[in-house]
Amino acid sequence: MSRMHISIIGLGLIGGSLGLALKAACGDKIFITAIDGQAASGTEAVACGAADVAEIDMTVGVAEADIIFLCTPVLQLGPIAAAIMPYVKPGAIISDVGSTKTFVADAIRAVLRADVDYVSGHPMAGREQSGIRAADKNLFHDKWYILLPEASTSEEAVKTIARLVSYTGARITTMGLAEHDQCAAAISHIPHVAAAALVNLLGVYGGCDDNLKLAGGGFRDTTRIASSNADMWADICVTNPAAINEGLKQLQGILTQVIAQIETDDRAALHEFFSAAKKRRDWLLDHACSGSV
Amino acid sequence: MSRMHISIIGLGLIGGSLGLALKAACGDKIFITAIDGQAASGTEAVACGAADVAEIDMTVGVAEADIIFLCTPVLQLGPIAAAIMPYVKPGAIISDVGSTKTFVADAIRAVLRADVDYVSGHPMAGREQSGIRAADKNLFHDKWYILLPEASTSEEAVKTIARLVSYTGARITTMGLAEHDQCAAAISHIPHVAAAALVNLLGVYGGCDDNLKLAGGGFRDTTRIASSNADMWADICVTNPAAINEGLKQLQGILTQVIAQIETDDRAALHEFFSAAKKRRDWLLDHACSGSV
Repeated sequence: MSRMHISIIGLGLIGGSLGLALKAACGDKIFITAIDGQAASGTEAVACGAADVAEIDMTVGVAEADIIFLCTPVLQLGPIAAAIMPYVKPGAIISDVGSTKTFVADAIRAVLRADVDYVSGHPMAGREQSGIRAADKNLFHDKWYILLPEASTSEEAVKTIARLVSYTGARITTMGLAEHDQCAAAISHIPHVAAAALVNLLGVYGGCDDNLKLAGGGFRDTTRIASSNADMWADICVTNPAAINEGLKQLQGILTQVIAQIETDDRAALHEFFSAAKKRRDWLLDHACSGSV
Repeated sequence: MSRMHISIIGLGLIGGSLGLALKAACGDKIFITAIDGQAASGTEAVACGAADVAEIDMTVGVAEADIIFLCTPVLQLGPIAAAIMPYVKPGAIISDVGSTKTFVADAIRAVLRADVDYVSGHPMAGREQSGIRAADKNLFHDKWYILLPEASTSEEAVKTIARLVSYTGARITTMGLAEHDQCAAAISHIPHVAAAALVNLLGVYGGCDDNLKLAGGGFRDTTRIASSNADMWADICVTNPAAINEGLKQLQGILTQVIAQIETDDRAALHEFFSAAKKRRDWLLDHACSGSV
């Protein structure tokens, strides 16, 4: 059996870490081509052991690939899939690592050839730094890696991607596209929007920037994710719009209830609001399967 | 000069830590009476060195006091001030440690005798645990302790409280009551409400409790303060209603803008929203005077 050819398009934190983890686990049994429009990222990927060769032209870089991982920002995934499709080998499998799934799967399926498989994926791994220099072969270790097969997805292709991903040390689970996007909105996207909104709210109050001494320990934690990458989060908002807006409106509704309880001096209702939140959060953390919640 | 008599009413985390810190710094130069309706808290306070004697009846416990620190939950501060006032020595100083200040100062000033001084205070210290057993003589060390003198407050009384508080290792600063309540709403109270609202939002989504694998690291941090004490936060809401509701409405307005940007697929505006938040937060943390932000 000849060795498996893998192409990784986009050698940032995720693409680079995926290459490092796969090469560390599989060595010469796999051959990885690093494809990045920025030549330096590809060169760096080869230098650090995340790939065997680098290639700038993605139409060339995918030609031999059995597996192609798309690891670029989410808005580029559809256009890149369209651009490479004529050059992909029959029987190859394309997978992606985007943070929103229905939008991406729709874009890729719209250009997918009948003789090429697509397996939607989402590794729950990240860190504050980005780029190939932040890549780490242990980034996925013990983290969830979600695969999102559709009714039309080949079972064999899912198994192949799952086997490869398992070499990274990730825990693999499956989920539906719509379920993913709705729950990710509730658990991740809306908290990000709220954290940024809370920071921007301080801009409305002229003098309070200097009064951070009033923050206690809460402000730093609650708004930590507001220091995340603005490009990535703008992309998430425009690629999961329905679920995020539905949730933001629900959040506004909850705030409207609190405002009414404060206006009517309804301490009992406010106490129930805070104690329900405490109870639910404590339960969630007790029952969380992952240490990274 | 006879030694200073201090009475602490409410031997929880703050009252207990204050007693421990003052006794550790001043030893027998001060005499502390621990007053708590729950006899066990007073006994424990004496046993651990936070006070010299314990007293259940506050009208007895304040009779000899030069300084009286009110360290009970915020809604009890006014009623307790009213109850003790006939028994307080002429020339005594009352101070409190409540989290909201205009409401409390109004309540205490309404019952204050002309021959007794009142100095409003707010130590920016706390932790997850509560009660006398969580008390720590270093709780205030290097934390801000805010004093909020009004035009009518005796300068001498402020100096006396500041000198005492300085023995705890806290950094002392002053602020106006209204400024405090508005900035505390923006920086602390509204983030608390939002964190609890984000947790309760998950209750709206049936299936997402089981999908915490989607949380990444963000959910735990953003909602940490939602596990705070529900009684304390209900009290804060009913004692700082105007500033909190004003801020919650502003927050809803910001969310309405984001919803519109998502609806119109305005990626540039969303990018500006997230990058403004990142910029402001990074600036705030760089410029924060306190390590506890």
